[in-house]
Amino acid sequence: MIIQLEKNITTEQLRKLQQRMFEIGFKATEVKTQYCHYLVGIGKHEIDLRSIGSLDGIKDIHRVSDQYKLVSSKWKVEETTIDFGNGISIGNGNFQVIAGPCSIENEAQIISTVHHLKENNIRMMRGGVFKPRSSPYSFRGLGIEGLKIFHHHCKEAGIKIVTEVMRIDQIEEMYAYIDDFQVGARNAQNFNLLDALGKVDKPVLLKRGISGTIDELLQAAEYIFSNGNEKIMLCERGIRTFENAYRNTLDLNAVAILKEKSHLPVILDPSHGIGIRRFVESMALAGIMAGADGVIVEVHEQPELAFSDGDQSINYNEAKNLYKNLNLVLETRRQLV
Amino acid sequence: MIIQLEKNITTEQLRKLQQRMFEIGFKATEVKTQYCHYLVGIGKHEIDLRSIGSLDGIKDIHRVSDQYKLVSSKWKVEETTIDFGNGISIGNGNFQVIAGPCSIENEAQIISTVHHLKENNIRMMRGGVFKPRSSPYSFRGLGIEGLKIFHHHCKEAGIKIVTEVMRIDQIEEMYAYIDDFQVGARNAQNFNLLDALGKVDKPVLLKRGISGTIDELLQAAEYIFSNGNEKIMLCERGIRTFENAYRNTLDLNAVAILKEKSHLPVILDPSHGIGIRRFVESMALAGIMAGADGVIVEVHEQPELAFSDGDQSINYNEAKNLYKNLNLVLETRRQLV
Amino acid sequence: MIIQLEKNITTEQLRKLQQRMFEIGFKATEVKTQYCHYLVGIGKHEIDLRSIGSLDGIKDIHRVSDQYKLVSSKWKVEETTIDFGNGISIGNGNFQVIAGPCSIENEAQIISTVHHLKENNIRMMRGGVFKPRSSPYSFRGLGIEGLKIFHHHCKEAGIKIVTEVMRIDQIEEMYAYIDDFQVGARNAQNFNLLDALGKVDKPVLLKRGISGTIDELLQAAEYIFSNGNEKIMLCERGIRTFENAYRNTLDLNAVAILKEKSHLPVILDPSHGIGIRRFVESMALAGIMAGADGVIVEVHEQPELAFSDGDQSINYNEAKNLYKNLNLVLETRRQLV
Amino acid sequence: MIIQLEKNITTEQLRKLQQRMFEIGFKATEVKTQYCHYLVGIGKHEIDLRSIGSLDGIKDIHRVSDQYKLVSSKWKVEETTIDFGNGISIGNGNFQVIAGPCSIENEAQIISTVHHLKENNIRMMRGGVFKPRSSPYSFRGLGIEGLKIFHHHCKEAGIKIVTEVMRIDQIEEMYAYIDDFQVGARNAQNFNLLDALGKVDKPVLLKRGISGTIDELLQAAEYIFSNGNEKIMLCERGIRTFENAYRNTLDLNAVAILKEKSHLPVILDPSHGIGIRRFVESMALAGIMAGADGVIVEVHEQPELAFSDGDQSINYNEAKNLYKNLNLVLETRRQLV
Repeated sequence: MIIQLEKNITTEQLRKLQQRMFEIGFKATEVKTQYCHYLVGIGKHEIDLRSIGSLDGIKDIHRVSDQYKLVSSKWKVEETTIDFGNGISIGNGNFQVIAGPCSIENEAQIISTVHHLKENNIRMMRGGVFKPRSSPYSFRGLGIEGLKIFHHHCKEAGIKIVTEVMRIDQIEEMYAYIDDFQVGARNAQNFNLLDALGKVDKPVLLKRGISGTIDELLQAAEYIFSNGNEKIMLCERGIRTFENAYRNTLDLNAVAILKEKSHLPVILDPSHGIGIRRFVESMALAGIMAGADGVIVEVHEQPELAFSDGDQSINYNEAKNLYKNLNLVLETRRQLV
Repeated sequence: MIIQLEKNITTEQLRKLQQRMFEIGFKATEVKTQYCHYLVGIGKHEIDLRSIGSLDGIKDIHRVSDQYKLVSSKWKVEETTIDFGNGISIGNGNFQVIAGPCSIENEAQIISTVHHLKENNIRMMRGGVFKPRSSPYSFRGLGIEGLKIFHHHCKEAGIKIVTEVMRIDQIEEMYAYIDDFQVGARNAQNFNLLDALGKVDKPVLLKRGISGTIDELLQAAEYIFSNGNEKIMLCERGIRTFENAYRNTLDLNAVAILKEKSHLPVILDPSHGIGIRRFVESMALAGIMAGADGVIVEVHEQPELAFSDGDQSINYNEAKNLYKNLNLVLETRRQLV
Repeated sequence: MIIQLEKNITTEQLRKLQQRMFEIGFKATEVKTQYCHYLVGIGKHEIDLRSIGSLDGIKDIHRVSDQYKLVSSKWKVEETTIDFGNGISIGNGNFQVIAGPCSIENEAQIISTVHHLKENNIRMMRGGVFKPRSSPYSFRGLGIEGLKIFHHHCKEAGIKIVTEVMRIDQIEEMYAYIDDFQVGARNAQNFNLLDALGKVDKPVLLKRGISGTIDELLQAAEYIFSNGNEKIMLCERGIRTFENAYRNTLDLNAVAILKEKSHLPVILDPSHGIGIRRFVESMALAGIMAGADGVIVEVHEQPELAFSDGDQSINYNEAKNLYKNLNLVLETRRQLV
Repeated sequence: MIIQLEKNITTEQLRKLQQRMFEIGFKATEVKTQYCHYLVGIGKHEIDLRSIGSLDGIKDIHRVSDQYKLVSSKWKVEETTIDFGNGISIGNGNFQVIAGPCSIENEAQIISTVHHLKENNIRMMRGGVFKPRSSPYSFRGLGIEGLKIFHHHCKEAGIKIVTEVMRIDQIEEMYAYIDDFQVGARNAQNFNLLDALGKVDKPVLLKRGISGTIDELLQAAEYIFSNGNEKIMLCERGIRTFENAYRNTLDLNAVAILKEKSHLPVILDPSHGIGIRRFVESMALAGIMAGADGVIVEVHEQPELAFSDGDQSINYNEAKNLYKNLNLVLETRRQLV
């Protein structure tokens, strides 16, 4: 059960409401986000909503049978829009391409990528400075100093930054330099990190776990939302299956299903999905038909020289082609009957 | 190694060729199909093709490093077209929708479906008369008598029939009444059935196994081809993974990859894939972007009353909508840069 | 619902019983096996068993809520024993090792293997003469002629033969020469083959599908049982997962669960399971602790020269060691509190 | 390549060694653990070890081709023993049972469990105070205050504590109260947490990820080792597959393979593995045959009232039985030929 509270609810009204929920066997969690004030009730039996709905301070009340509550479309029918400023937004009809290298490697690479994005009217850039790597001996990113340079060039160019956060204590140091915190697949159930990201007011791009279920992804998003941050984007990036002909099984079924189950925008990552350069485009285009609100794509000036993920990164020409085709297919999506 | 033989190769020339292959350590299998005559050579070490290419009777010779040979695009670059007659073909730019019920239930249903297809200019109909069912106590189809009625109405309407064959001895009795033998996911590695289907000259729609790899699907197709039948369509129908939010994980990655690895047409089955009625359309449209040459879709006048697979069957109105959107998206695919 | 019928039930009594089941909304299937006569009732709603139990001709009546019925332990609490004659039996406390090569390669190999088995007091031999192979160009077995030689040597030595059947029409030709029909993982849902094996009176070793669920395995066994053959052994042989450090994920959980869900014996195939020679023994021993009633193991005089599955075959010395340890661990299993 | 350094290597000798490795194209990482001093060299091409082995300060030098290095058995053949003091150790022939509830719920539960363990001569207790939960609304543990009470009772009883750490900043506050840090499956690739645990000198029980490969588990252990902590135990706790008849697919294959690939002890968690109370024992016993050095089992006085994981927790009587049978089977393992 989700209770949307009146903006001007008094402490006394809130206390009474919590008391009433306790009486009817519900555990009430108070949630205050950037936009709204809620009580989330978790209980084991069905109740008659009228038994509580008449109390003061309630704006609206909804029954939500899913395990996840605030991120469910059961109570919030309208799709969420994430507004990044400068006319850049994602969700509810707004589509963005997020492009850039797997890892930020050096300043020249940033400048070159920014130039490529500007030229193609792409407004958001990806690029890791903290890199989760299977082996401790691999390159682990340029760190916060790299991020500052990344930020310097993007700010100038009006480009928004999406980059991965791995530790709670990085949140604060990264905050001023990024526009969106990315949570990687390996941290998809790092609940303490999710809690902490729920306490900031910048958007979070939340990746599905390496073999995370759709339900787990939504519950992970619930961690962020229930800590106070409504600005969440869900990201499908491929799951682990028995098939080895590609890197991961990009799960376009999940895109369609997430769009139905949740009001949050859904971003597709075809690069980590199929993981093979020459198939990135067709998977991205397919993703639009499945309902994606954006794509995040690895682009590198010279993929064969990339520090990481070179096999799945496309070069500038391939990217240019992708951008054009994405627009064409988006246009068609709007025309579907 | 694949050797395409001259049409008029003499027995003596062939014998010499086989002898030579034996000498250089290759096991040679002679394959005679509807269209062509081949020797497939399997050997463990690399050889210089010139050491054999100068013999008489050879039209062309190709190195194919894949496990599968004749179905590989390594030697046959042009995509295969399957021609069903009456201007109906699939592959190499030709797209078809195959629609109809999971099971043929009765004559009224056939008539109604045929009418629906005619109205929407759909030229191929699916419908099972031999049904593989997990439980021996479930409905197992109307059998050959059902097929005869099915055939009667389709023939009149100029509609081609795609239906599943389960036993070798059904091939002969079904032959006169069908246009395409479907091999179901559970028989994807029933090698004796594949051998037998390689000896007929009608097209085969070969489904990927329930957890079959892409490579296994291509080797299964190789069974058919190497027995003499080149008319094969590969069908992606979803794989088994840990995710339970839908029926199967429809694997659009596989569509893109099959199109590259093989010259055979690829058909998408979104109904068995995602397995939920309201997502069938978006998966079908996504499949076009992934490169599919056709879709096979379960359509039922009243899905809620279907003998089988009602949850994933769309009704006539939903189907009509799908057909329109498929055309729109196909049109876009042709315009991609 | 399972109704065990009286041996001397009259046609009239049976007709009345079927009539009554129809009236209460149950579809009744008559099953006559080597040992017993049953009516299996499939219905959607619960009924009071007494409403039917008072009719004549009924020996016993059981409610079985599982999808599978006759193979369920819900109605038959005592474990099934498969008796191969000569004091060789499996199930209900009786344990057997089935050992031998993947493929029967030649007569010398048969003689050598039989000698090895005799020496070690192993009473059952495996060995394929019809081989399902991923590629059509691989060795596919010596066929029926090989089986005859296989049979000749085993009969003399008092050793029972377990070998794979792939086609319905092989059942009859193999019948006189084998003691147990094996159904391979790729045919685990070849329902027509299962139907046909239900009509013979020799035991069937039924392998779990490559990614078959436990429930599907039991329903496959139900096909055989409901066609009249109660002599079924279930075989766990590893499932397909994301892990590539070994061949298949041998699923010992399934052994424990099958033993609970069904009264049929459970055989473990560690060779195809983990698929790596030096781990076969520890998996076999672990399988005993999980509850297996037997193991089927690939043994080859010179594994490195085997026509197939050499990597997972153990040699005679390794096998001898395994047999000893199996006995030791079996002895311990009997002593568990 | 792993170079074991002399204890008394001089700074100058070390510098020269690093310089030499750089020259031959190897990236050298210096690792100083509780016991030893290493240089780990990562390079892309093979080298002649003699080209470096003659330098001063080298105790031994090993080629390790695995992705993981220090945790590999390629260089350290003898199995590692983790010594917890008071005669309690794990690995290299030493076996321990770690038993206790999923979550620490209250003081009475701790007292009761400690009493049960003492009575049965079990020396290590599990129990979570920081609980990773899929839903933010679930019980998340008693926290550090709960741990202090837990510690108080265990210390008195001479029982060692194994409990999960979720955040880097918990390491310091937990340190004085625990004997072993557990890393849960959801944090199996939380590389920053692993880095931090590499900097303490207490043992770490590292669980395999929910769908983590064996290789990833070993690389995660490498994170801990390469940061300076050699005291690592690997834990198999079941993987995610398509099968839903149980909670997870407990992978006993992995136990056998980890024992070969690494010198670290391997602990089995049958409770989270199969996840069904009545099968926990047979999986634990099977695990011994697969080679486990210990088992970690959920035990609760009244499983049906447990705050979490009640379905897979065994009660005191069941546990008593398990302990006896574990001893019996361990005894047998020692007798295997």
